[in-house]
Amino acid sequence: MRILFLNGPNLNLLGTREPGIYGQQTLKDIENGVREYGEHHGAQIEFRQSNAEADLVTWIQEAQKSADAVVLNAAAYTHTSIALRDAISAIKTPVIEIHLSNVHAREEFRHHSMIAAVCVGQIAGFGHNSYFLGLQAAMAIIQSREP
Amino acid sequence: MRILFLNGPNLNLLGTREPGIYGQQTLKDIENGVREYGEHHGAQIEFRQSNAEADLVTWIQEAQKSADAVVLNAAAYTHTSIALRDAISAIKTPVIEIHLSNVHAREEFRHHSMIAAVCVGQIAGFGHNSYFLGLQAAMAIIQSREP
Amino acid sequence: MRILFLNGPNLNLLGTREPGIYGQQTLKDIENGVREYGEHHGAQIEFRQSNAEADLVTWIQEAQKSADAVVLNAAAYTHTSIALRDAISAIKTPVIEIHLSNVHAREEFRHHSMIAAVCVGQIAGFGHNSYFLGLQAAMAIIQSREP
Amino acid sequence: MRILFLNGPNLNLLGTREPGIYGQQTLKDIENGVREYGEHHGAQIEFRQSNAEADLVTWIQEAQKSADAVVLNAAAYTHTSIALRDAISAIKTPVIEIHLSNVHAREEFRHHSMIAAVCVGQIAGFGHNSYFLGLQAAMAIIQSREP
Amino acid sequence: MRILFLNGPNLNLLGTREPGIYGQQTLKDIENGVREYGEHHGAQIEFRQSNAEADLVTWIQEAQKSADAVVLNAAAYTHTSIALRDAISAIKTPVIEIHLSNVHAREEFRHHSMIAAVCVGQIAGFGHNSYFLGLQAAMAIIQSREP
Amino acid sequence: MRILFLNGPNLNLLGTREPGIYGQQTLKDIENGVREYGEHHGAQIEFRQSNAEADLVTWIQEAQKSADAVVLNAAAYTHTSIALRDAISAIKTPVIEIHLSNVHAREEFRHHSMIAAVCVGQIAGFGHNSYFLGLQAAMAIIQSREP
Amino acid sequence: MRILFLNGPNLNLLGTREPGIYGQQTLKDIENGVREYGEHHGAQIEFRQSNAEADLVTWIQEAQKSADAVVLNAAAYTHTSIALRDAISAIKTPVIEIHLSNVHAREEFRHHSMIAAVCVGQIAGFGHNSYFLGLQAAMAIIQSREP
Amino acid sequence: MRILFLNGPNLNLLGTREPGIYGQQTLKDIENGVREYGEHHGAQIEFRQSNAEADLVTWIQEAQKSADAVVLNAAAYTHTSIALRDAISAIKTPVIEIHLSNVHAREEFRHHSMIAAVCVGQIAGFGHNSYFLGLQAAMAIIQSREP
Amino acid sequence: MRILFLNGPNLNLLGTREPGIYGQQTLKDIENGVREYGEHHGAQIEFRQSNAEADLVTWIQEAQKSADAVVLNAAAYTHTSIALRDAISAIKTPVIEIHLSNVHAREEFRHHSMIAAVCVGQIAGFGHNSYFLGLQAAMAIIQSREP
Amino acid sequence: MRILFLNGPNLNLLGTREPGIYGQQTLKDIENGVREYGEHHGAQIEFRQSNAEADLVTWIQEAQKSADAVVLNAAAYTHTSIALRDAISAIKTPVIEIHLSNVHAREEFRHHSMIAAVCVGQIAGFGHNSYFLGLQAAMAIIQSREP
Amino acid sequence: MRILFLNGPNLNLLGTREPGIYGQQTLKDIENGVREYGEHHGAQIEFRQSNAEADLVTWIQEAQKSADAVVLNAAAYTHTSIALRDAISAIKTPVIEIHLSNVHAREEFRHHSMIAAVCVGQIAGFGHNSYFLGLQAAMAIIQSREP
Amino acid sequence: MRILFLNGPNLNLLGTREPGIYGQQTLKDIENGVREYGEHHGAQIEFRQSNAEADLVTWIQEAQKSADAVVLNAAAYTHTSIALRDAISAIKTPVIEIHLSNVHAREEFRHHSMIAAVCVGQIAGFGHNSYFLGLQAAMAIIQSREP
Repeated sequence: MRILFLNGPNLNLLGTREPGIYGQQTLKDIENGVREYGEHHGAQIEFRQSNAEADLVTWIQEAQKSADAVVLNAAAYTHTSIALRDAISAIKTPVIEIHLSNVHAREEFRHHSMIAAVCVGQIAGFGHNSYFLGLQAAMAIIQSREP
Repeated sequence: MRILFLNGPNLNLLGTREPGIYGQQTLKDIENGVREYGEHHGAQIEFRQSNAEADLVTWIQEAQKSADAVVLNAAAYTHTSIALRDAISAIKTPVIEIHLSNVHAREEFRHHSMIAAVCVGQIAGFGHNSYFLGLQAAMAIIQSREP
Repeated sequence: MRILFLNGPNLNLLGTREPGIYGQQTLKDIENGVREYGEHHGAQIEFRQSNAEADLVTWIQEAQKSADAVVLNAAAYTHTSIALRDAISAIKTPVIEIHLSNVHAREEFRHHSMIAAVCVGQIAGFGHNSYFLGLQAAMAIIQSREP
Repeated sequence: MRILFLNGPNLNLLGTREPGIYGQQTLKDIENGVREYGEHHGAQIEFRQSNAEADLVTWIQEAQKSADAVVLNAAAYTHTSIALRDAISAIKTPVIEIHLSNVHAREEFRHHSMIAAVCVGQIAGFGHNSYFLGLQAAMAIIQSREP
Repeated sequence: MRILFLNGPNLNLLGTREPGIYGQQTLKDIENGVREYGEHHGAQIEFRQSNAEADLVTWIQEAQKSADAVVLNAAAYTHTSIALRDAISAIKTPVIEIHLSNVHAREEFRHHSMIAAVCVGQIAGFGHNSYFLGLQAAMAIIQSREP
Repeated sequence: MRILFLNGPNLNLLGTREPGIYGQQTLKDIENGVREYGEHHGAQIEFRQSNAEADLVTWIQEAQKSADAVVLNAAAYTHTSIALRDAISAIKTPVIEIHLSNVHAREEFRHHSMIAAVCVGQIAGFGHNSYFLGLQAAMAIIQSREP
Repeated sequence: MRILFLNGPNLNLLGTREPGIYGQQTLKDIENGVREYGEHHGAQIEFRQSNAEADLVTWIQEAQKSADAVVLNAAAYTHTSIALRDAISAIKTPVIEIHLSNVHAREEFRHHSMIAAVCVGQIAGFGHNSYFLGLQAAMAIIQSREP
Repeated sequence: MRILFLNGPNLNLLGTREPGIYGQQTLKDIENGVREYGEHHGAQIEFRQSNAEADLVTWIQEAQKSADAVVLNAAAYTHTSIALRDAISAIKTPVIEIHLSNVHAREEFRHHSMIAAVCVGQIAGFGHNSYFLGLQAAMAIIQSREP
Repeated sequence: MRILFLNGPNLNLLGTREPGIYGQQTLKDIENGVREYGEHHGAQIEFRQSNAEADLVTWIQEAQKSADAVVLNAAAYTHTSIALRDAISAIKTPVIEIHLSNVHAREEFRHHSMIAAVCVGQIAGFGHNSYFLGLQAAMAIIQSREP
Repeated sequence: MRILFLNGPNLNLLGTREPGIYGQQTLKDIENGVREYGEHHGAQIEFRQSNAEADLVTWIQEAQKSADAVVLNAAAYTHTSIALRDAISAIKTPVIEIHLSNVHAREEFRHHSMIAAVCVGQIAGFGHNSYFLGLQAAMAIIQSREP
Repeated sequence: MRILFLNGPNLNLLGTREPGIYGQQTLKDIENGVREYGEHHGAQIEFRQSNAEADLVTWIQEAQKSADAVVLNAAAYTHTSIALRDAISAIKTPVIEIHLSNVHAREEFRHHSMIAAVCVGQIAGFGHNSYFLGLQAAMAIIQSREP
Repeated sequence: MRILFLNGPNLNLLGTREPGIYGQQTLKDIENGVREYGEHHGAQIEFRQSNAEADLVTWIQEAQKSADAVVLNAAAYTHTSIALRDAISAIKTPVIEIHLSNVHAREEFRHHSMIAAVCVGQIAGFGHNSYFLGLQAAMAIIQSREP
């Protein structure tokens, strides 16, 4: 099981950015925890982050071949990127949408996700646990699709 | 850890209602699976279902004392019930919103959740796995709040 | 042919409530007329009324087994109840939406029906005749579906 | 009892146009069935069809004198024609709005009827039976208005 | 003078629910104060509470005979219940809408009252004093209507 | 207790303007009644009326020093005046919004109050009794704030 | 001065249609009055009416050559006809929009005029005097444009 | 016949303000022309202008006694003033709404008139001729109301 | 290859109407150019124009048998005609939507095409070249559908 | 260089009104600072404040002659006053819009400025420095316009 | 004639991505076909693709000098990119907007093009033929602009 | 004082792009002027430009450490970039939003700024002076924050 975690803009600031809201773990901390848990359960984990919409689009495209599932925290691009939506639609690899915060409880413009309709499902609001829940969901989906 | 699973209208039909969409497991099947998993991890599980909004409101109120976390699949009431929202706001027990299907990919009127803003987070789209992910999220939240 | 007539909130007041608008017949009067006409044409008629959304939801669910067609005057719940809509979607028994008054000529909030999209069709504006037209539509649908 | 059936644009294609949706009966077939049923019950039936909004407006105007009730399937003009609405308002003859398909379950722009507020009532979704139900509704209205 | 006070969902939690907002008086405390004041001024007071929309609808219906005025805190159902609106329209007994908090200063979805247009008037924002003001308004209305 | 009653545009016409709607009492009649009641209960009453938004703004500003509570019938300016809203926000003296008619049952543009969110509460629909209820609410607020 | 009066759908019913609203004059009566007044002031008057949008479009096109000004009561087509708007834009002859009733005080859908932005001006609400005011406006415009 | 012409904000600038749009006549020029024409036809003309909404409101109120008709160019207040609307509603004297420019062809926010629904009718787009047409409309209305 | 070009209202004015915008070619000029080009490439061209919506609807209906493709410049009816949309849906002959001007760069109400969703594609903004591009698109579609 | 600073409603309260938000400087303090800075750079400064929309309109009109630039803090009238907008459009003197607070970060109804489209530019959010930046902008504009 | 074809995000997947919708040709295939056709008619063709909005912006900027026309398939950025719109506005080189699919028949958010208003025209819905039609349109525009 | 000026897409074209609107100064000219003025007043100036949203996001992130204030002309990204907004929220360095043109007087889609709510303030409409005013605002903010 190869599971690719993609992280969008400003997530490189985790741990230093408003820790009261986003927690004190850095993205690296989360990556380490997820990798450890994933490898323990037989999943190979890859983590990437970029502030550029195009990088996320390209990585999604490549996941068609390089991954069995994608866990995507698209951050700000969640709400506006039709390009990401199109990329997700174009591949067969299942994509799971995650968010650290409960986007439904924040500003109005964060209530709508442009990508939700083409992802398998959405997990939002559980802090760094959203990554672990995303990992578990990914593993369950991969296993249910295997013959 | 006492975790209360509340299920809204029409979920009593699971397994027989459009199994192509909702799967072939009945609500009882899911309850058994969740109970087994929960008890294995030290959680005491209670499952209830009702077609009445008032029952859900009352059960949420009682959860203030009887549960450490609530996993709520409010089904149709998700989108319209201010009474449920007020009940969730009124208690300190954390409530996790779950959905079998990816509500964001369905009809427009299912995109907005009246209760999302007062729940801890939302898990949607993973079929019966949404219940297991909800259980894991609940356990993580309870543990993180314990001294 | 078993045909179930379900009546929503405030319809128990028929005959006494604004008779200038709703006519002087009580729901019992209408029931008697419909039953007589139905039995004359070989249809077994059952009439129920409730002010509770949950009762209507449950009765719709049961109609899957107990009726060949449902004639539903959901009254106020017509415009807001996603739970009723989900229940109608969940069963195979055809449901016909009726209204005493011409809802399209009344307040703005009565112009939209939440259940119309999942019913076979809609009959509105013919006073107590809406029940007889609903009965005739139901009989025609049942007959057209029989082998 | 003189009852006038008016049919709007594209209804001349019935039977050949998407028979899966609209059925295999032509407008002539429906006319024959309705005429037979009507004459059997003492009603004189007239059927007309036009693709032109102005024809329908003029026929509605003339119905003031030539008919005791109008059964109107305005088709596409249902949703946009203020001229039809004004014509219906201008006459005392009751007008009944019918539709073959359940317009409330189709595209958004078909959910609103510009003429509904000035018609007696609406019957939609019962295929060619909508014409028979419209006929029965018309006969009931005429009879209830007679001294 | 018989005055009926009806209370909607979650009002049974008064005193314990967010006392910073709703005050420390329980609904029983308010009932006692209102009863004492009412009886002192010759009014017979009855207090009821339910989380169920249908209970409120039925109680409104019964008030046609059992009360001279109704003071209604519909809570969450204020904003969505067409059934309550229809029940209020159906009776001749005057209904006064009250709210503990200033609903106009809260979330957007609390700004619109579905029942306001069929009530005599609205009193909102005065905490438990809203009940006393509602009582005084009710007594004034009853007295002005008496011969 | 010094209580200032401010009245907006066209309220100088009370008694002569549509008495069927607004009653036959003039603003002077209401003032006399309110003054008598107020003085009997230890409150000093001042009444002012102006058609000018700026007068109302200035009087609100001055109330910071000259009054313990303001009862404001802003009439037409209720729905549009941000200047009034800002003035009310700028002072510590509590302001109570009143209306003779039930604004929620009138034209759409009267449903929204620009000042409601910064007033203590709203009383609407009780004719000249709205002034007496406003007075009682004001006295209760002043007394609850006194040490 | 050649002035063309064009009349849209249902205006052929004037005098018989809701005389309480539209007055007891027929379109012929108005035509006679306008012609007499116009000829007295040196204007040649032509009156036409049609229920067909296409007739009005074609007559507007021809007015480029046959008239010095057009007075247009487009009735129902006022609110929906882009074809009329395009025709008016395409000619240099000035067009004056008139209405018998005050369209701004009627249903919402009559508040917007699709043609107003390309007409010289609008006169609405003066009954048959709207035609005389339109005539006077037309004469003034023609005279002001003459060298 | 006493006819009062009321002019709103910035109309004191006529003749100097954007003469390409508003013409080179000052408000005084128009007043002189209107007075001459009016007196010639037996009407007594009074002209007033103010930049203050309250002045216009008060003048409208006084017109109940001092005028047989009002011709009102409310300028900017046309689109926002509920106070003007209420004043017009409160008097029996007919009020005619006029505009120099074709407001329907200008910015979106000028398309809606807050006062149109309570005026007799609207004349817009004929430059200074709008005043003469307003005068003629006023005289016709007064004459038609006289016994 | 039989290709039918249908032209809507006001296109008969081409060449004389605002030549700065629409060019100096008449519809006849365009027809000649298109016919020459078409015949040179083996396509039989037919051109029709009408100001009447009903003519366009009927011609579309007939194209089911008489043409292999339709190139439709529906002009003003593009934005409002559900009847045209229904006619296009009802036939199997492919329809290509063309416009002389770039409708997306004009008034807001021209941005939405009621027929676009049922046409093969849209070509807009290339002046008379839109007709030639439409012809080429039509020929390509016919050829790709041939066995 | 004559520069006129105009201040709208409630700005007379500066320094005492919510000093946490608006700072502790009074309008007089700001005036003194601005005057000193302006005179030092060769600009003659005039400061005015009013709660009345009409005063601001009249002052803007007079600025055509009496000032080389206007710095306008219209406060609450920013968002609603078409009269102010028309006055600004009517004069050639450039007007600069300023705000103490960042209006774009406050309530929704403060996001839209009715006057922004006719002002030279907008400066918002810099507290009393907004006045100094407005002064500098005004001086730069005057200098760039001088020959 | 130098013609630049720019392709936006996900178009690099053509041929492999949902071939049922987008066809089996790769972007390279289309490029080859277009180049051959273009060179045959004297046009020099350049093809570029990027997933990055900034690349497209920069290429558009450079086209001012390097191309005589641009054919732009902006894909997902069509609907959201103001930066692309500004770049197209900033250059004199004509830009033609193309789409493989009929965007007007797809999801609501694809109906609006942010760039259409600044492009010459739009071609949508003809599959890979959209590129050839775009090429022909480009050549026609270049030729019509040449002296 | 280190002040960072960030410039978004298409600003590299300044001076050549529509000089009638944007002036004839290039971005380099502005940079030189700003640097000279800034250094003269003790501020160290850095200027950057990119067409890529991600570059701006990254530069904003880095400004947390490398600058005491940011002056940001986000150009087209102003209106759509949630990523920029999140980056600005994530750092403590104050950010000032500037625009060359008066965005409030341009197309509707430029009226809303996605970043305004998280910036200190906004300066728009003063051409290249917007940069100098931004610089002065930045210096004032830095100085007011220093101990």
